[in-house]
Amino acid sequence: MRLLGLDPGLRITGWGVIEVTGNRIGHVADGVVRSDDRLSLAARLAQLHGGIVAVLKAYEPVEAAVEETFVNRNPASTLKLGQARGAVMLAPALAGLVVAEYQPSVVKKAVVGTGGAAKDQVGMMIRTLLPGATLETNDAADALAIAICHAHYRAGALSLALARAGGGR
Amino acid sequence: MRLLGLDPGLRITGWGVIEVTGNRIGHVADGVVRSDDRLSLAARLAQLHGGIVAVLKAYEPVEAAVEETFVNRNPASTLKLGQARGAVMLAPALAGLVVAEYQPSVVKKAVVGTGGAAKDQVGMMIRTLLPGATLETNDAADALAIAICHAHYRAGALSLALARAGGGR
Repeated sequence: MRLLGLDPGLRITGWGVIEVTGNRIGHVADGVVRSDDRLSLAARLAQLHGGIVAVLKAYEPVEAAVEETFVNRNPASTLKLGQARGAVMLAPALAGLVVAEYQPSVVKKAVVGTGGAAKDQVGMMIRTLLPGATLETNDAADALAIAICHAHYRAGALSLALARAGGGR
Repeated sequence: MRLLGLDPGLRITGWGVIEVTGNRIGHVADGVVRSDDRLSLAARLAQLHGGIVAVLKAYEPVEAAVEETFVNRNPASTLKLGQARGAVMLAPALAGLVVAEYQPSVVKKAVVGTGGAAKDQVGMMIRTLLPGATLETNDAADALAIAICHAHYRAGALSLALARAGGGR
């Protein structure tokens, strides 16, 4: 089963696709989508969205996950990130994929074993777990980490999502 | 020429379509799209986006406008609003429409004549300018106000957008 991890940002959005077979995980692809800051906000959001639509088409993941956003102290940055996040999450949602959300500490714990791990520990662990990863940037490594986290927690997260969709049943 | 105004919010997104003929404006339609708060964030963003895609299909506006967001002091609200804004703006952007942005004070000035107008003055003026408007909620009135603002300023805003898209030419 293929899972897509997303690390949204207005300038650079990271993505990573893994293949899960039983309790083994393998690297499929990773990369980033950039937006052109000379364009209008709407055009930049369309670039990010279009890039992720292309990833969905190319690799056909069946579920997606994003990190719950760290709420930045700078409100303007928080708004930018929110807009990027909305445009990026919408791509798998419109394709009918479940989009799970995980807190940053949960992602770190799933990958490194501790919720307080440093940024570069995540990248190092991704390189160990997924030797084929290209990891053009940290954003792609973070996206793969989110996909791995989803592979660990998806059963629980899915049943929660279904309970919410069913109005608590 | 038909113009679409949008007032994005995660719970309720207002929209309004006006027809501009020379310097006359007429009401075409207005309404709101609601998201179901029992669903996941991604599913709610897809509901908002889908609602605006349906509006674009039904009324075929040729340009769109949104208000530049007031950055809320509550970071969690700012993030929510940003996500809704990203999903909503994306609908016209993906359809190839220019999506202009205006500061709240500019919208008020275009509709009421002063940038410091109160919320209900905007609604009253919209009822006067567009007698056919249904204005189910303030969100729809605000969306029509944004469309009217765009009708006033579009020549200037468009040339700016084209200059940005052309890298400053």
